[in-house]
Amino acid sequence: MKKFRICLFGAGEMASTHAMNLATDARMELAFIVDPSAERAGALAAATGARVVDMDSAFEDASIAAYIIATPPRTHADYLQRAAQTQAHIFCEKPIDHDIGRARACLAALQGRESFVQMGFNRRFDPHFIALKQAIAAGKIGTPEQVLIISRDAEAPPVEGFIHSSGLIKETAVHDYDLIRWLLDDEVAEVYVMADALINPDYLTVGQVDTTTTTIRMARGTHVTVLNSLRAAFGYDQRLEVLGTLGQAAVGNLAQSQLVLSTHQGVTGEKPYFSYFQRYAEAYRAEIMDFAEAVATGRPVTPDATDGLRASEIAEAAMLSVQSKCPIRL
Amino acid sequence: MKKFRICLFGAGEMASTHAMNLATDARMELAFIVDPSAERAGALAAATGARVVDMDSAFEDASIAAYIIATPPRTHADYLQRAAQTQAHIFCEKPIDHDIGRARACLAALQGRESFVQMGFNRRFDPHFIALKQAIAAGKIGTPEQVLIISRDAEAPPVEGFIHSSGLIKETAVHDYDLIRWLLDDEVAEVYVMADALINPDYLTVGQVDTTTTTIRMARGTHVTVLNSLRAAFGYDQRLEVLGTLGQAAVGNLAQSQLVLSTHQGVTGEKPYFSYFQRYAEAYRAEIMDFAEAVATGRPVTPDATDGLRASEIAEAAMLSVQSKCPIRL
Amino acid sequence: MKKFRICLFGAGEMASTHAMNLATDARMELAFIVDPSAERAGALAAATGARVVDMDSAFEDASIAAYIIATPPRTHADYLQRAAQTQAHIFCEKPIDHDIGRARACLAALQGRESFVQMGFNRRFDPHFIALKQAIAAGKIGTPEQVLIISRDAEAPPVEGFIHSSGLIKETAVHDYDLIRWLLDDEVAEVYVMADALINPDYLTVGQVDTTTTTIRMARGTHVTVLNSLRAAFGYDQRLEVLGTLGQAAVGNLAQSQLVLSTHQGVTGEKPYFSYFQRYAEAYRAEIMDFAEAVATGRPVTPDATDGLRASEIAEAAMLSVQSKCPIRL
Amino acid sequence: MKKFRICLFGAGEMASTHAMNLATDARMELAFIVDPSAERAGALAAATGARVVDMDSAFEDASIAAYIIATPPRTHADYLQRAAQTQAHIFCEKPIDHDIGRARACLAALQGRESFVQMGFNRRFDPHFIALKQAIAAGKIGTPEQVLIISRDAEAPPVEGFIHSSGLIKETAVHDYDLIRWLLDDEVAEVYVMADALINPDYLTVGQVDTTTTTIRMARGTHVTVLNSLRAAFGYDQRLEVLGTLGQAAVGNLAQSQLVLSTHQGVTGEKPYFSYFQRYAEAYRAEIMDFAEAVATGRPVTPDATDGLRASEIAEAAMLSVQSKCPIRL
Repeated sequence: MKKFRICLFGAGEMASTHAMNLATDARMELAFIVDPSAERAGALAAATGARVVDMDSAFEDASIAAYIIATPPRTHADYLQRAAQTQAHIFCEKPIDHDIGRARACLAALQGRESFVQMGFNRRFDPHFIALKQAIAAGKIGTPEQVLIISRDAEAPPVEGFIHSSGLIKETAVHDYDLIRWLLDDEVAEVYVMADALINPDYLTVGQVDTTTTTIRMARGTHVTVLNSLRAAFGYDQRLEVLGTLGQAAVGNLAQSQLVLSTHQGVTGEKPYFSYFQRYAEAYRAEIMDFAEAVATGRPVTPDATDGLRASEIAEAAMLSVQSKCPIRL
Repeated sequence: MKKFRICLFGAGEMASTHAMNLATDARMELAFIVDPSAERAGALAAATGARVVDMDSAFEDASIAAYIIATPPRTHADYLQRAAQTQAHIFCEKPIDHDIGRARACLAALQGRESFVQMGFNRRFDPHFIALKQAIAAGKIGTPEQVLIISRDAEAPPVEGFIHSSGLIKETAVHDYDLIRWLLDDEVAEVYVMADALINPDYLTVGQVDTTTTTIRMARGTHVTVLNSLRAAFGYDQRLEVLGTLGQAAVGNLAQSQLVLSTHQGVTGEKPYFSYFQRYAEAYRAEIMDFAEAVATGRPVTPDATDGLRASEIAEAAMLSVQSKCPIRL
Repeated sequence: MKKFRICLFGAGEMASTHAMNLATDARMELAFIVDPSAERAGALAAATGARVVDMDSAFEDASIAAYIIATPPRTHADYLQRAAQTQAHIFCEKPIDHDIGRARACLAALQGRESFVQMGFNRRFDPHFIALKQAIAAGKIGTPEQVLIISRDAEAPPVEGFIHSSGLIKETAVHDYDLIRWLLDDEVAEVYVMADALINPDYLTVGQVDTTTTTIRMARGTHVTVLNSLRAAFGYDQRLEVLGTLGQAAVGNLAQSQLVLSTHQGVTGEKPYFSYFQRYAEAYRAEIMDFAEAVATGRPVTPDATDGLRASEIAEAAMLSVQSKCPIRL
Repeated sequence: MKKFRICLFGAGEMASTHAMNLATDARMELAFIVDPSAERAGALAAATGARVVDMDSAFEDASIAAYIIATPPRTHADYLQRAAQTQAHIFCEKPIDHDIGRARACLAALQGRESFVQMGFNRRFDPHFIALKQAIAAGKIGTPEQVLIISRDAEAPPVEGFIHSSGLIKETAVHDYDLIRWLLDDEVAEVYVMADALINPDYLTVGQVDTTTTTIRMARGTHVTVLNSLRAAFGYDQRLEVLGTLGQAAVGNLAQSQLVLSTHQGVTGEKPYFSYFQRYAEAYRAEIMDFAEAVATGRPVTPDATDGLRASEIAEAAMLSVQSKCPIRL
């Protein structure tokens, strides 16, 4: 059986997750790994049977059916543009680029290949959120009116470690901005964000905030609220609920175990999962399986590069709203 | 408006609860209180506007429409028999008598007044259990097959304080034995009980056990399990679930507040209520209101003295099963 | 025992609720009822033993210890100002007046009696919300950072029936604006509201909206989101959650029964209560008991007229935000 | 890297599950598949890269490090005895044999290899039950007093399809009998079973029952109740709870999705998983990984053949109790 040869850029935790998940699809063969750290690349190659190559070799090998870009954000656009010159499928972690101008330029350069570039918005592949979207599609709650997304990390990074981050809005909230477009099949019309450093005011010294409350009006009028925070002390807090004309659909947090202890201290269930690798393990698997299916069948992908740009544009408007202290229309 | 005059035997916590609940029915007038403790009787009389009288006066006053017997169990039969000679309605805390022979004799002496003697099986009036019974009646779960009752006190009494008790089966499980007859509209055919002193082996020194597991086969075949214990460290543990051909109906524990705390220690809800006065507050109110309605309209009551005897007979068989280490047929 | 004589303005559902709850405090005597509908006033008088009088008699009787104003909102200010000329305690349903200018004038006219005028913000007396506030005070979740209030009616009124309403913000959200001040012991610094008619666009024809999303920044920085709607098809949706530095405290919806049915259709619990009279029954009782205690002891009340004005001012800013499409600073 | 060569007996759903799970351990190599159905064996071989061989070849190949027996129960003992003559590790689905005499003889024939024969009691590897056991070990609930196991299939088999089954006790309850030994680190002292055909009386015509209620007293006194049924219409009903001196630990049902719908019909969550392959997917993976670890390191296994016999002996006593209508001591 001829296998589809994959080239992976990156060898960190995200890249490894994709490599391991790919290994369960017998049609796919992880052929190349490209990473500046020879040690890290070598380790992942050893574990997967792939070969470590340099970037040029990776792009020159015409047998590569797909490129997966799981490198630091600032490098995405370069890889993307070069990969787009091949006829291979591309999977790219978000964002295209944190600079909206560069992101737009990159998208323009894709020249018709946009729909063969899958963006790593993993939440779209979470089975729980999919069940919620299907419930809406099945008319279970009527027309959506008011949506609530809660999306908080479990542990805030040290201030110094957050200096070079693109920040809470572009790193985290952007996932929720994409989620809402997908969930409601609708576009964001207007966004207002309140942003503060409530966990630690020192974040302000490096130009960052730790708590944001986003209010969105969709094109069809639906209200959306997104609560983001760098820290929920009880775990990675990922919830979604939609009020519609006929009722409400909601997905709460997930925990590693169902154990409930009842003692004189109360009735206590497990904390939610701590990290996104745990909470979204199934989603990461499903998204790369979906990409593999596109590679194997030659079909376009979803979410694609255009979706990636749209989410970035909402994030850009959100940043602008913080500065202007007013809602921004898109 | 002519009021229905009530005479209350007892002035303890149970008697006071009935008095307070009765006060909210404008048709009823708590006329007399009879209790060996003048102080306790006086206090309750002061709070309710009733008059303290002796037993003979209480029974001789032809204006009394109803007697409520909320005294220690060993005195019930005497009060019952004497009250049954009037035409008044009677409300009697369970049991008729802890001695099954005396209970039977007492019932015989009621001579046709059985259905005007309401027994204090408060669980029948709990709105949650009623909702469950109605769900069964409405066919929501089909025909009952397997029933589970969990009924545990929050705090075990000191060994010495338990010497004169009639014990876990006759004090507590008997409530569940009555509950199951009412819930399933069926009779107990066979009962097997495993009884031990697991909380404190010293209970055995006063002839008591603290943990019982009862298995019942109903006349129509339904399996019933009753888990009783003198102590659930997290609160008064009162649960009921019924598996039927089409599904399951269940009532879990109730707590004073809906507050849920999520911290690094877990996701913690309130403990269940601690006492039966809290957990069954609504049931106590509803049962005495139902009795008042019977008094006001002259109709018979439910559960009546015959139900009281039936529950005692099941408890008697349960005791016998513990001794014989085998199931007992009724 | 000398009783404290109460005069009640109004004889509708709210007034009746207060009357019934007051009846359980033996120190209080409902002396007068004042209502334009002789029939309604007479019925409530008959049920409570009070006397129907006209307004002038009510205010001229020096024996009245407290006035309770449970009439339509437009009449509150007049009653309040007149009652404030006596030395009686006053309980007044919110608002002081829907016109913020009149409300301010009324407060000025109280001349030092503000803290003897209790406003009917019942949510402050809900035992679940109190448990949440106590958990914060006890340091269970650290410093509040992000608060979410969901407050939706179960059933939207017909458009024509909503013409004379002061609307979703002033009728409903104002309760939540007061709640947040009490919960956080902090003032609202800034409010932004997105308001639309999503349930029924015809509401716009009578100048009303049915769905609002309010974003608040408190003086100490805490973010607050309030989701209001005229309709949650599954019941009166009343939830509250607070994320703090150490975790989260939350109160969910309450239902009439704990019954859970598990069938081929899923695992189904009861809907939340349908109306505020059901959901907040305990809160209504507690608030009037607290008022009675203030009357009996002569102490000031909480929330008082100043709190009433504050909540109205936030609502006013919220209305302004809707018009200006920008956040409003208070 | 030298791999450990595995031989798999059986090619049905259980065998396939083991094969797929084994494939994720790079140290293991599925070498042989033995199954009377050439077609089925061939399909699994194709999917896994194994070779189809006959039984004799399988036992004669000295390179085999482990045998996995996932064939119909009546064949287990033969395979076991023959495999035990090699020095290979053995994994055997329960039971050793449904006939207790044959099971005992088989165990005797193992001659010291008992602890290298792992029995397929998958529930011991369920992460939720493990969390519960760890909570007990950590002293979270004190000493266990009263245990409840609910273990019901989702769908009852047709009567004719159940003729050759060893029945509800030996097929299903035996899992729970093993579970309780493991959970409590204690032995069963006494067992009483009530067994009936309540779902369909026709089961009696083929010598089967569909509903059993088992009451167990452990050697250290703990009470255990096991509720088994061939059908819970809402899904595969697998629950476990333990009351101890300090509180309770419980594991409820698991569902495929966290979606909760709130409509006029109630607040509805997903049904529990439908099958054991879904509910115990993680447990099946973990048990075979644990076996692989034993193979790779040469260590003994748990639960072993002795555990297998013990569970069968409890099941045998349970059957006897049904016949004798009395508790049976072990």
